[in-house]
Amino acid sequence: MLGSETKTHEILKGLQQSLLRNINLKFILFGNKKIITKQLSKFKKLNSAVDIVNCIDFISMNDKPSEILKSKTSSMYQAINSVNDKISDAVLSFGNTGALMSLALLNIKTLPEIKRPSIASIWPNMNGESIVLDLGANTKLNSRYLIDNAILGSSLASILLKIERPSIGILNVGSEDYKGNEEIKIASDKLKTYGKSGIIDFFGYVEGNDISLGKTNVVVTDGFTGNIALKTAEGTAKLFQDHLNQAYRSSIFSKLGYFLSSIPLKSVKERLDPRVHNCGILTGLNALVVKCHGQSEYRGVSYASDIIYSLLYNSVNEKIKKYVIEMQDKINI
Amino acid sequence: MLGSETKTHEILKGLQQSLLRNINLKFILFGNKKIITKQLSKFKKLNSAVDIVNCIDFISMNDKPSEILKSKTSSMYQAINSVNDKISDAVLSFGNTGALMSLALLNIKTLPEIKRPSIASIWPNMNGESIVLDLGANTKLNSRYLIDNAILGSSLASILLKIERPSIGILNVGSEDYKGNEEIKIASDKLKTYGKSGIIDFFGYVEGNDISLGKTNVVVTDGFTGNIALKTAEGTAKLFQDHLNQAYRSSIFSKLGYFLSSIPLKSVKERLDPRVHNCGILTGLNALVVKCHGQSEYRGVSYASDIIYSLLYNSVNEKIKKYVIEMQDKINI
Repeated sequence: MLGSETKTHEILKGLQQSLLRNINLKFILFGNKKIITKQLSKFKKLNSAVDIVNCIDFISMNDKPSEILKSKTSSMYQAINSVNDKISDAVLSFGNTGALMSLALLNIKTLPEIKRPSIASIWPNMNGESIVLDLGANTKLNSRYLIDNAILGSSLASILLKIERPSIGILNVGSEDYKGNEEIKIASDKLKTYGKSGIIDFFGYVEGNDISLGKTNVVVTDGFTGNIALKTAEGTAKLFQDHLNQAYRSSIFSKLGYFLSSIPLKSVKERLDPRVHNCGILTGLNALVVKCHGQSEYRGVSYASDIIYSLLYNSVNEKIKKYVIEMQDKINI
Repeated sequence: MLGSETKTHEILKGLQQSLLRNINLKFILFGNKKIITKQLSKFKKLNSAVDIVNCIDFISMNDKPSEILKSKTSSMYQAINSVNDKISDAVLSFGNTGALMSLALLNIKTLPEIKRPSIASIWPNMNGESIVLDLGANTKLNSRYLIDNAILGSSLASILLKIERPSIGILNVGSEDYKGNEEIKIASDKLKTYGKSGIIDFFGYVEGNDISLGKTNVVVTDGFTGNIALKTAEGTAKLFQDHLNQAYRSSIFSKLGYFLSSIPLKSVKERLDPRVHNCGILTGLNALVVKCHGQSEYRGVSYASDIIYSLLYNSVNEKIKKYVIEMQDKINI
């Protein structure tokens, strides 16, 4: 918890909320014991479900990926190691994404045949939800990573969204075959052959607006593009919300109007609120690692904790592993 | 107008709407004369302001960039040529973006020292509006194009948004110096030196959500990332709108609520409606070329025509040229 931009108070409030819904949860907090203990006194129900591991060192948001390996005393390293040592079942982090990716890659390691982990998220759309990845783990565009993302995304959509053969699209600037750069074309050609052999359901290229339209169950992209897309969507949602709030405050009639429509409007807000949906699953690893936005509020924290509970309860990472191995067996035949 | 996905009826309706607001406009339509003439009979006010150039050949959305140069008889080529021949002052296209870019580059040619044209758009944000570019002209990431985009964006923000020294940000996956790929870093280093010499106001890196927050007046990116960001924002806005409409229809109270708040809500819809804001200015050329979304409705067409009128009336392209040359003089000192 050290080095993150999320306030300790928000984290504890979010965890307590989640604990009330998922009573079997236990938390190990890696951070400054003195600060956490002091704040924890305000969260009585959480107290008995928490262990604290005092950490004096931390990885800041500004540390370069090359620097992060320097210290095995950092809170992030220790949290990841507790999964390796089977003390924890999953890691939840609000810190430096690049550092989390590198440390997880080196210590928890990827599933067989998967080169790198990828950040996946559940994205709301007109038809329900889709899986979008990578949202920022690997910013380098590489056809192999795109192919891995297609396999990982397919497994997540199959398990989390309960879709037997999820349709997969690659994010591009147009749907025509000649569009996009070389890496995208190579990945698309490979996925087409997997599609023809019936291993996956490959749709082809999708565009930015197709994510929200829900054209495919899985949207595959590189970490640079995915990160920009996710944050642009967040910004647009905030802008819309901000304009709406202003509109409702503009007259006595619109205030009354808001009052009358407030229940369904609140539900829209909840469904699309980026503060709630801002957690990413670091998928493709041997254990469950979840990354939340640095500036998460308690609602984002409690949502992330709920997700982790549900993923663990349903043995999702084991299912992903099984799915990926089966798929790779088919590919290698 | 041939080869575009926008229906002739929508184009004519949009142009007539714009003509009523800008009575000095004259239109030359390049397309199938028979079809246009037939449809035109429904738009009496537009009739006298229109010339039709019959074209039998066209560039389709599926034509590869390499194929588009094959025919000088295409409607797009002829429209661009009419600007070269000083018959028209500007080109408005709803067709293939890559083709428009290549034909404009070859025929209208770029401003001195600008390598390639770039698609710029006015993006609404919390503080007003900003200029975002490139939204899809050059999908190749190249530091030189990014630097050109910074200069072009600065000129547009200065002229269209009336900001003396517009702040410029490069779109990246984080604000830290080490983030992003090599091309972005090279461009950023160069722009920093221009910033230090007082030629531009360079802010540094911005993230996807900063576009809607309005952190900088200009947001610079490559055409691949910009296109994904724009379309993702469009999709998110549509999703929001769709959920809101559902919410309002959910009960008699919310219907009444909508009725009471309908005036300010409509204004929000207008301000953020992607169908209205979907036109891009192909900037960096010796003449004005505007690209509209292929699936534009009449509102998008009339908005684009209004924009063109305003840009021509205010000699914006001449001002951009002057601004760019002055800036390059300062750079070369």
